[in-house]
Amino acid sequence: MAVQTVASTTDSATANAVDLGPATALSCRECGHRVPLGPVFACEECFGPLEIAYDFSAHDTEELRKRIEAGPANIWRYAPLLPVPADVAAKPNLNPGWTKLVQADNLARELGVTGGLYVKDDSGNPTHSFKDRVVAQALEAARAFGFTTLSCSSTGNLAGAVGAAAARAGFRSCVFIPHDLEQGKVVMAAVYGGELVGIEGNYDDVNRFCSELIGDPAGEGWGFVNVNLRPYYAEGSKTLAYEICEQLGWRLPDQLVVPIASGSQLTKIDKGLQELIRLGLVEDRPYKIFGAQAEGCSPVSTAYKAGHDVVRPQKPDTIAKSLAIGNPADGPYVLDIARRTGGAVEDVTDEQIVDAIKLLARTEGIFAETAGGVTVGVTKKLLESGALDPSLTTVVLNTGDGLKTLDAVAGTGLTATIRPSLESFREAGLV
Amino acid sequence: MAVQTVASTTDSATANAVDLGPATALSCRECGHRVPLGPVFACEECFGPLEIAYDFSAHDTEELRKRIEAGPANIWRYAPLLPVPADVAAKPNLNPGWTKLVQADNLARELGVTGGLYVKDDSGNPTHSFKDRVVAQALEAARAFGFTTLSCSSTGNLAGAVGAAAARAGFRSCVFIPHDLEQGKVVMAAVYGGELVGIEGNYDDVNRFCSELIGDPAGEGWGFVNVNLRPYYAEGSKTLAYEICEQLGWRLPDQLVVPIASGSQLTKIDKGLQELIRLGLVEDRPYKIFGAQAEGCSPVSTAYKAGHDVVRPQKPDTIAKSLAIGNPADGPYVLDIARRTGGAVEDVTDEQIVDAIKLLARTEGIFAETAGGVTVGVTKKLLESGALDPSLTTVVLNTGDGLKTLDAVAGTGLTATIRPSLESFREAGLV
Repeated sequence: MAVQTVASTTDSATANAVDLGPATALSCRECGHRVPLGPVFACEECFGPLEIAYDFSAHDTEELRKRIEAGPANIWRYAPLLPVPADVAAKPNLNPGWTKLVQADNLARELGVTGGLYVKDDSGNPTHSFKDRVVAQALEAARAFGFTTLSCSSTGNLAGAVGAAAARAGFRSCVFIPHDLEQGKVVMAAVYGGELVGIEGNYDDVNRFCSELIGDPAGEGWGFVNVNLRPYYAEGSKTLAYEICEQLGWRLPDQLVVPIASGSQLTKIDKGLQELIRLGLVEDRPYKIFGAQAEGCSPVSTAYKAGHDVVRPQKPDTIAKSLAIGNPADGPYVLDIARRTGGAVEDVTDEQIVDAIKLLARTEGIFAETAGGVTVGVTKKLLESGALDPSLTTVVLNTGDGLKTLDAVAGTGLTATIRPSLESFREAGLV
Repeated sequence: MAVQTVASTTDSATANAVDLGPATALSCRECGHRVPLGPVFACEECFGPLEIAYDFSAHDTEELRKRIEAGPANIWRYAPLLPVPADVAAKPNLNPGWTKLVQADNLARELGVTGGLYVKDDSGNPTHSFKDRVVAQALEAARAFGFTTLSCSSTGNLAGAVGAAAARAGFRSCVFIPHDLEQGKVVMAAVYGGELVGIEGNYDDVNRFCSELIGDPAGEGWGFVNVNLRPYYAEGSKTLAYEICEQLGWRLPDQLVVPIASGSQLTKIDKGLQELIRLGLVEDRPYKIFGAQAEGCSPVSTAYKAGHDVVRPQKPDTIAKSLAIGNPADGPYVLDIARRTGGAVEDVTDEQIVDAIKLLARTEGIFAETAGGVTVGVTKKLLESGALDPSLTTVVLNTGDGLKTLDAVAGTGLTATIRPSLESFREAGLV
């Protein structure tokens, strides 16, 4: 069954030159204009975002399912559905993915969910965030295009993911971050030994500089994972959808709660679910996607509640730094998906984020990053408002690790201090 | 094939009452005296350490291999070889294990290893250290003995592993730590919501207090994972041996480099390898086990080099805190295994530990805890001295995550700081 096919012979010729498996071209999300696979991210006709177009026509459903199930315990089990060469698993990379889908019965009891509650825990990835999934795709594109330096602008998780992936793959890496980033985050990225360049300015300045560098001869041979490799990079989020469905026994969940930063992850999860339906790997039935933001950076949630189709930028002020994108590129697509599937977009305060981190840790032994506090907190809020149906199967994403945002729960501490004696122990009332 | 069987009918009767799968009794490592399965750890005859005795006689080699390969992607694939009930995978626990065995070709090139170099990366466990493996075994023993509180003395990794495991399993937890532990480590353990008690004193005082509590009515119903549940707990390290061999295609590595804290992990890895040989799951051929310590806490290495059979306690002073046990209980057994297999015990300085952490990160994208710096540093040193043969298959253990010991590499930082302009970029010489 062909999900998308190539329109022109020009595209086919180029696709043959660049082996990225089933990927055949780049297609504009807005106007449908197609260009050959290459390190470009915006449509030359309308400046819309480019996406990967595939030819999946060769797949027989049952053979594909068997092939996936016999594949490695990482994202490369889905290589036939990703823009990567068929032999990708043999190349040096971090092999992310196939993280645990935790059946969260204790959390379900506390929240009153009866239809099955699951946490997709991406803290189990090599550098402990979902970014390893997307960087792994960008790395393959960088190889295909002959790049030798892997680069990005980042304020945290992405810097480490790029540094680690480049180190293992034998690429040079050069990561740009605001010069005044917290020392802990600098260390997490610097340890991999690549170039780590502080830019005197804020994250917007860093981004502007990177765009400038791409257009300059100095940036030749550089793959910026989240800029000129963005169409490939973004596809990595599809693997979250694939894994969730396979781990549920090739079944769509009824409801998903997904964090929103740029909105790319949520839109690609929807794309992944649609592909599984069209390929016949899961039954075609309705699912609802809910987006989660922090109140201190809630441009999409604000637009959703106001009934708007466009997203008005905000200046972020929240502890959920990994979601703090004030002008999310995929915001309008997120609004569309939430409305089309019958989901919603909601936000929670920093205090609710911290409470949710503790709730998840206390009930399931999972220590989530602030982004996981956002999704669990929003899940609680949406259950209380009735937007989430407690009788349906619900999957909540935790996209990062609590060790990366220790400050958020810095108030947590000793429950008692005693002398090393049974008498002191009894006095403390701990028996 | 029976590795060990039960001697008396008394044992069998008790084993029936407590279902811990193939475990049949506790057996003294020193005098062989047997007692029924229970929450005890020292021999009543000679005060030697008690170990689990098994009945593996029911296993057919090929059936067992198939059963393991069809099992879950965690330690419970080896349930038939562990002191746990057959339905263990269905009980709420953190499902640790089946972590990546990374083929470290870049590191091999730098170190001159030609026979294949692998890093067994246990930072991929749920709380990011190998402790999840041992705590998961102790938890099952605690369930079997009807305990309702999970406890331990700890200075770091173990506290978090116990807190998380207890939260998920629905146990109360009460963890004892020195009252002046670094705030970051306190947070990593406190977030799971259990009791976290600071003891006014050092780690020895904490341990003494725990032993007192076990003998007191106040400690009734308490399972101390590393004290009264120690025989069960320790068996978790066998899974490292099982996984390494299975991931190598059911083959013994020629050389293993293992960190030494109490020495328990190294001795149980040897036990696991011996079991695989006796069960016919791997070919019986020689392997060498090398122990790795930090110079600042090197009682076993010192004894090894001096040709002693006994280990003289030391006062630890090293950045490798997770290995800083000055009086390692299993030290003499480690010496015996290193000598018997043709291995060695070596140590490295704190500076070499930091260099090795950076070396592993730079070559393979793996950010190791200080304990991983110890094993990689010792591997380098043993290759230089000729004790390790570069032409043989070598597996190095990384037992924890660099995010837990960020301070060790705090000196790592920005390679340049520039203004957001191409001119400034060129001036910095980054092109």
